[in-house]
Parts: sequence; C-alpha cells; structure tokens
Amino acid sequence: MQKADIGLIGLAVMGQNLVLNMLDHNIRVSVYNRSSQKVDDLLERSTTQQQLLLTPNYDIASFCASLSSPKKIMLMVKAGEVVDDLIQQLLPFLEAGDVIIDGGNSLYSDTQRRADVLAAQHILFLGLGVSGGEEGARFGPSLMPGGHAQAWALVKDIYQVIAAKVDGQICCQWVGEGGAGHYVKMVHNGIEYGDMQLICEAYQLMRDGLGLSVDQIAEIFQQWNQGLLDSYLIEITHDVLCVKENSAPLVDKILDSAGQKGTGKWTAIDALEQGIPLTLIGEAVFARFLSSLKGERLHASQHLCGPEKPLVENTQAWIGVIHDALYAAKIISYAQGFMLMRQAAKTYAWKLAYGDIALMWRGGCIIRSRFLSDIKQAFEDNPQLNNLLLDDFFKQAIKQAQTGWRKAIVLGVEQGIPLPAMSSALAFYDGYRSENLPANLLQAQRDYFGAHTYERVDQPRGQFFHTDWIIQKNKVKQG
Amino acid sequence: MQKADIGLIGLAVMGQNLVLNMLDHNIRVSVYNRSSQKVDDLLERSTTQQQLLLTPNYDIASFCASLSSPKKIMLMVKAGEVVDDLIQQLLPFLEAGDVIIDGGNSLYSDTQRRADVLAAQHILFLGLGVSGGEEGARFGPSLMPGGHAQAWALVKDIYQVIAAKVDGQICCQWVGEGGAGHYVKMVHNGIEYGDMQLICEAYQLMRDGLGLSVDQIAEIFQQWNQGLLDSYLIEITHDVLCVKENSAPLVDKILDSAGQKGTGKWTAIDALEQGIPLTLIGEAVFARFLSSLKGERLHASQHLCGPEKPLVENTQAWIGVIHDALYAAKIISYAQGFMLMRQAAKTYAWKLAYGDIALMWRGGCIIRSRFLSDIKQAFEDNPQLNNLLLDDFFKQAIKQAQTGWRKAIVLGVEQGIPLPAMSSALAFYDGYRSENLPANLLQAQRDYFGAHTYERVDQPRGQFFHTDWIIQKNKVKQG
Repeated sequence: MQKADIGLIGLAVMGQNLVLNMLDHNIRVSVYNRSSQKVDDLLERSTTQQQLLLTPNYDIASFCASLSSPKKIMLMVKAGEVVDDLIQQLLPFLEAGDVIIDGGNSLYSDTQRRADVLAAQHILFLGLGVSGGEEGARFGPSLMPGGHAQAWALVKDIYQVIAAKVDGQICCQWVGEGGAGHYVKMVHNGIEYGDMQLICEAYQLMRDGLGLSVDQIAEIFQQWNQGLLDSYLIEITHDVLCVKENSAPLVDKILDSAGQKGTGKWTAIDALEQGIPLTLIGEAVFARFLSSLKGERLHASQHLCGPEKPLVENTQAWIGVIHDALYAAKIISYAQGFMLMRQAAKTYAWKLAYGDIALMWRGGCIIRSRFLSDIKQAFEDNPQLNNLLLDDFFKQAIKQAQTGWRKAIVLGVEQGIPLPAMSSALAFYDGYRSENLPANLLQAQRDYFGAHTYERVDQPRGQFFHTDWIIQKNKVKQG
Repeated sequence: MQKADIGLIGLAVMGQNLVLNMLDHNIRVSVYNRSSQKVDDLLERSTTQQQLLLTPNYDIASFCASLSSPKKIMLMVKAGEVVDDLIQQLLPFLEAGDVIIDGGNSLYSDTQRRADVLAAQHILFLGLGVSGGEEGARFGPSLMPGGHAQAWALVKDIYQVIAAKVDGQICCQWVGEGGAGHYVKMVHNGIEYGDMQLICEAYQLMRDGLGLSVDQIAEIFQQWNQGLLDSYLIEITHDVLCVKENSAPLVDKILDSAGQKGTGKWTAIDALEQGIPLTLIGEAVFARFLSSLKGERLHASQHLCGPEKPLVENTQAWIGVIHDALYAAKIISYAQGFMLMRQAAKTYAWKLAYGDIALMWRGGCIIRSRFLSDIKQAFEDNPQLNNLLLDDFFKQAIKQAQTGWRKAIVLGVEQGIPLPAMSSALAFYDGYRSENLPANLLQAQRDYFGAHTYERVDQPRGQFFHTDWIIQKNKVKQG
C-alpha cells in the first residue's frame, strides 16, 4: 500500500474531524489511537472513497512504518504529560528530519521546551494552534503554526489546504519560531473569553436593565450580526437564545456557573508576567470564577443590598447604547491582546506578522468576525502600528461609540448590573489616553515608606531621586 | 564572650534595623554580611550599650561559632537564588535542630520547597513575612511566621518582643506550616497594591474631577485619617501632599510611572491559579503596568478623545461621595484577599486564623489601619465567617456607602477619569450579590461550539447535559 502523507495520533472528535477534512482534500492519512475503538469509530464515519486514503493502525510501530519519509506525525492528544510520553514512544521509530506536530492546546512554554529538546535529536517540531471547534476541524479550522521553520515547509501544503478560507485568503500562516504558534492560539483563547463575557454583559443589560424577553434579545443579536458586530459568537448567541424547551427558552434552564479549561487563565497569567495591562481578559477569567461560586452568590443575594433601580425609558435608544458599549469594549480587548503579543515578540525574539494573525483569526475559529478584517486592514495600512487604538478606523470607531459606552456603564452601575469587562475596558481607555495618571502619588508613597526612589518630570529618565518625606513635611509644618 | 541568642545575615537597611530593634530588647545578636562594609556601618550606627550585645563577624564560620545552640540564623537577603546559596553555605556548620529563618520577600512556594528539603536534613526552617518598611523594622514590624512549628517555639519570644503592638496585642502570631507565613505576607503586599491604587483614584477624582488643589486634597486626607479610613497609607498620603519644592507641591514633579517589585503580581497570579476572583488587586497591578507606558500614553493623549466633561457643583458633597467609594472598594479588596487566603488554606491544608492575620496587619505594617480592627472583630464574632461582606458591620458599611460609591464611578465614567479599582470592586459586589449571572448563556455558547456540556437549574449538580443547538434552533425556525 502507498505510504501516507501524514500520520495522526489521537482520535477524539477533533482528531477524527481533522482526518476526515484531510481525506476530503486527497491527503493520505495514517491514524493510531491508544484505544482501538476510536480507530474503528473513524472507519465507520468515513466513506468508502475516504477509506481508500486512510490507513488504520492498532500499534505505534506499524503506524510509524506506514508513513512516507520524512515522517510527519500530528498529535491531537490532551495537553501536558501525555504529549511528552507520546513523543518518547515515537522517538525509537523516528530518524533525523522527521516532523512531530502538536495540534493540542499545549502551553507555549512546553512547546518551546519540546522544540529545543527535539532539535538536539535532529527531530523537527511544530506547535500548531487549532481553533474552530469540531465544526472547524471538519470543514476548515483556523491554524496557527509555530516551531522549526524547516518543518513548516514540509507540511505547509497539507495544512493550508485544509484550513479555513475567507475571501480566498488562507487562515493558516507561519507564526514564528519555538512556541509562537501556541502562544498566538493562547491569546486567541483569551480573546474568546473576553468576547463571550462582553456578550453576556450586553445580554444581562438588556434582560435585567431594559427588561427585554429572551426572544426580543435573540432578535437584537440577529440584527447586530448584520453590522459591525458580525461574528460567529454573536451568531451562535442568537441561535442559543432561539432554542426552546417546552416553549420556554432553554437558556433559562442552564446553570449560570461557567466552566473553563485554563487557556484564558494562562493568557491572564502571561500578561502579568509580561507586564501588559490585559485587563479585560483578566476580568473575564475572574468573572467565570465568580460565576462558579453559585452557592455563595445565592446566599449573598439574600443578604447584600443593591441600589434602587431607576426606571428605564426609551428602550430602543438604550439598545443602541449597549451595542456601542459592546463594540468599543471589544476594540479595547483586541488592542490589549495585540499589546500582549507585541511584548511577547520582544521577550522571545519572534517576528510576529500581526496582519497575518488577524487574517488567521478571520475565519475558521471561534472569534472569527468581520471585525478582524478591520484589524488586518489596520496592520496592512501600517505594519509598524504600535497600538490598534491609534489606527484611524478604530480611533474613529471609539469616538463614535464612546458616548453610548459610557452610558451603558452608568446604566449598569445605577441598576446594580455587574459589567466587569465593559467597565474595565473603559478604565483602560481613559488611562491609556491620560498624559498624567496619579502614579506620581503612588511613587511618592513608595519612596516614603520603602525608599524606592522616583523619577522626575523635569529630569531625564533613568535618574532616581529620594526624599526624606517626614523631614520635608515637618519643615512645611514649621514653616 | 557569651554566645548570641540569634544570628542575622544580610545587613541592608532592613537587616540593620531589625538587629538594632533586637539589641534594644536585650537580645544578643551576632551578624554577618558578605561585604564587610555593612558590618562596620552597623557598628557605627549602634550605641556603646547596644554594642555590648552585638557580635560582628567577617566570615561565616566564626558567625556560626558565635551562636548558642540550637543555632537560630535569620536571613535578610534578596529573595531567590541568594537564599538557596546561603543555605548551602550554612549547612556544613549546622546540626540537627538548628533553625534557619528567611525574613526576605520569598515566594511562598520557594519557602515550602526549602522547608521540605531542610526537614529531610533535620534542620528547622521558618519563612517569616516582615512588613513595615525601614521604620517598622527598627521600632516594631508586623511579622508573619510560618514553616516548622517546632522552630517557632524556639524563636517566638525573640520575634514577639520586637514586633509591633497595638492596644497591647502583638502583631506577630503563628500562621501555619510550610509557606503559610510568606503566603500571608504576599497577600498583604497585594492588598497594599490595592489600597494604594484606591487612594490614587480618589486623589485623581478630587484633582481632575472636582478641580481641587493639592493643598485642599492634603487637608481632606487628613480629615479622612480621623475617621473610618484612619490608616498609615492615608496618613502618609497627607504627608506626601504637604511637601513642597520651591513653594509648589513636590508630587507634581514626580514622574507618574509606577514601579513594583513583583509581590502584587505574584498575588494576582496566585488568585488566577487558585480560581479566586481577586479583581481589585489584579486591576491595581495592571494599573501600574499602564502607568509605566508613559511614552505611549503621552502619544495617545494627543490622538484619543474623551468625553465632554460635565460641570461639577457642590464640591463638598462630592468629597463625601469619593470617601464612600474609597471605603466601600477597600472593603471589597479585603474581602477578596480573605477569599484568596481561605482557598489557599484549603489547597495547602493550612489552618489559618483569619482574626490573627487581621491582628498582625493591624500594626507595624504598611496596610495598618483602624479598619483591620473591624476585620479582626468580624472573625472574632464568627470564626467560621465565610466572607467579610456577610459580617454585619461590613454589610451595614457597604449599605451606607454604596450610593456614594456608585455616584463616584459615574463621575469618573462621565469625566473620563480612569477608576479601574473602584469600578472593578463594584462589578464584583454586584456580581457576588447576584443570584443569577449571565453565565448560563456562556455555558450554552461553550456547549454550542465545543460540546462542553452544562448543568441545569432543575437538576442536581454534577449531572451534565448536551444539546445539539443547531438542530434545535432549526426546529424552532421550522416550527
């Protein structure tokens, strides 16, 4: 039998769907899974036509023997030790120049470490971010490859053919060395946390603030999906809100305790490590934590009082206000995400192409949106753009949206509706555009109690001053 | 010469001041420092009387030989590898039952690791959180000891005699095993970040929102220091604002770019790891990051527009509003900090005495305040108190403050003044007291694109459901 173009280990739904996607594109795929049942499941799901290109294996030796040289082996397994174990199992069957591709949700620093270890053994390694859920994997995911550049040349055609396309552009472009691919995927996931939180805040404002029904809100999301907010997550929000159980909205039967798999948390932690104010995603992660304290909240709701809610009139105008808040806050979230990637590129000496990243996220993945075309355009117009907020389009967009944005937050504050992401975004915006922040007072406090010193506005940076504040204060008192 | 009661290595200002504090209390201290100059500095700073109790050493062997058995050696050196190196240097001179006390700002997980490693060698280890700055070290610091309980019995008298006292109570109580002492110190530092950020936000509201002068604001902080906000940080804020240079406020000459030494960052990262919504401290850390982007902010201030600022009238009433916002947000910050410690106690099987922790912070340290007496009281009234917000005193306090709190945030939003900490605290409060959050929609989204499943409000916890949302939505559309 003809040897396979690529092998794939790990046949959970994502892995199976990627294989079927490859087979549809006439790529010969060999597969292996620890439990043989999944191999049989895949065979059952595939057509006779697809089976002509598919080599099932029930042990790792025959799997490796079935691959053309240099071998290309994709792992779609649980992030963590499983990946390291599998690499160890594969190594005896590999030779110099073979390629391992980790398509799981691995932490980028693990990917960096694996790339270094494998390079010493002349094995090429790629960390490939895969987004789009089951549907994306099957019909066109967003793919974010990083690692050894020589390896990319060997598998580029395979991945670019199965990736999502938007307006003829491929949502799969080289990201950079080491852990760059998984890094960008991590930031993608963080942004996904932020987008979802913003939608939830808009939903709650309409539900509890304006008193709209689930049906009415579903309708509004459908309208929003025709405009600036056109995106997969807005679309599925509409879908979700339409679903009924016994004629009542199913969403009302769902427990409001949010789960997570940790990638949003990684993004927030990384921002703290890199020194970047990624406030919106941070708040989105914290909001999931808070939601999960359902029992505590229930108890607290019976003891802690809120404001007297003012009556809201002119619902139609308020819907526009909430739209603008969602849109403006979303711009902030992406601006912060790109700030984080820019800092990481400095830290790890990656040459990230920000326009390509926007393009990769444009289709196939969970955060896909029209909005990302505007971001791609911004970086195309100015590849050196230091911050998305300074791009003319987004500058103008925030200018138009900010009155509504501020009104929406005032509504939440006065009605007692929590808006952690929307209000954190506004605080960031107002901070970012402030020539002067009160951190001068903070520096004085630090110098007072810890002699940490400070810089001065009338002296060059890098010169540090200390004041004995107690002596100086007493002078003033005596003076 | 009589052997010393305790030895101290590391004679930077903090170390020197702790030694002088011990000498004042008739404790015999032996000292050593890598550079001998610091030893001589200390000798110069000490009185003839103090020198009778002080043994200077210029090498580690004679230092160790000068100590009574079991040896008690305190390290006041830079956190990190220096501590590990020093422990290695000391080990040849130690025998079973000797005690090493790390009084630096070590990461609690390092302390945990060192305690385990040293236990295997029969050396006792304490991680001691020390707060209070130079002044505190000299005349009474807040001390947070953790590690091997047997070691505590050997040094308790020394540390309790030099610690701060408030109303006859000692600000130094046993915290718990392993890294517990340094953990509590870490949370203290995180709370310090939050307190400072809140003061800065109140300052900016008064300065830019109400248009008050630095002198007027200094006066207001002095008044606030007589009431509910009575605390060291409010006191020194008043002092700082009083200091002049050429008749103008010195604070205006200080660059508004905040530094940090990383302990606030550690606290925020730990909260993310523990799954606790520590939003206020998180925002305070991010606010320092944002402040440090001075060049970017300066540029952005020329390009990004703000709101049209409404005129503010009735300044006196607004000052009360800002006071209430600062007070309420501070309550939230401490409630979050204690939530984090409660979770850490579960994670690491520590038996934390929350009232004792409040007592330790009551005096000596940077966050010392009257407020901490109220917290101590809350945990005394109910040692099982699940959340500070549910204590009657604080419940009432927030009830009274919340109208002002909300108004202050509206002022900031409408004036374009960033209030990341105050508004994040309010979003947390409104979320915590919400029986229902929109996380049900979020769970539906996750189930839609990733088949992550959800729980239901009408079924027991732990049962997970999945819906094929696309099929169900199409049913509705056809229906």
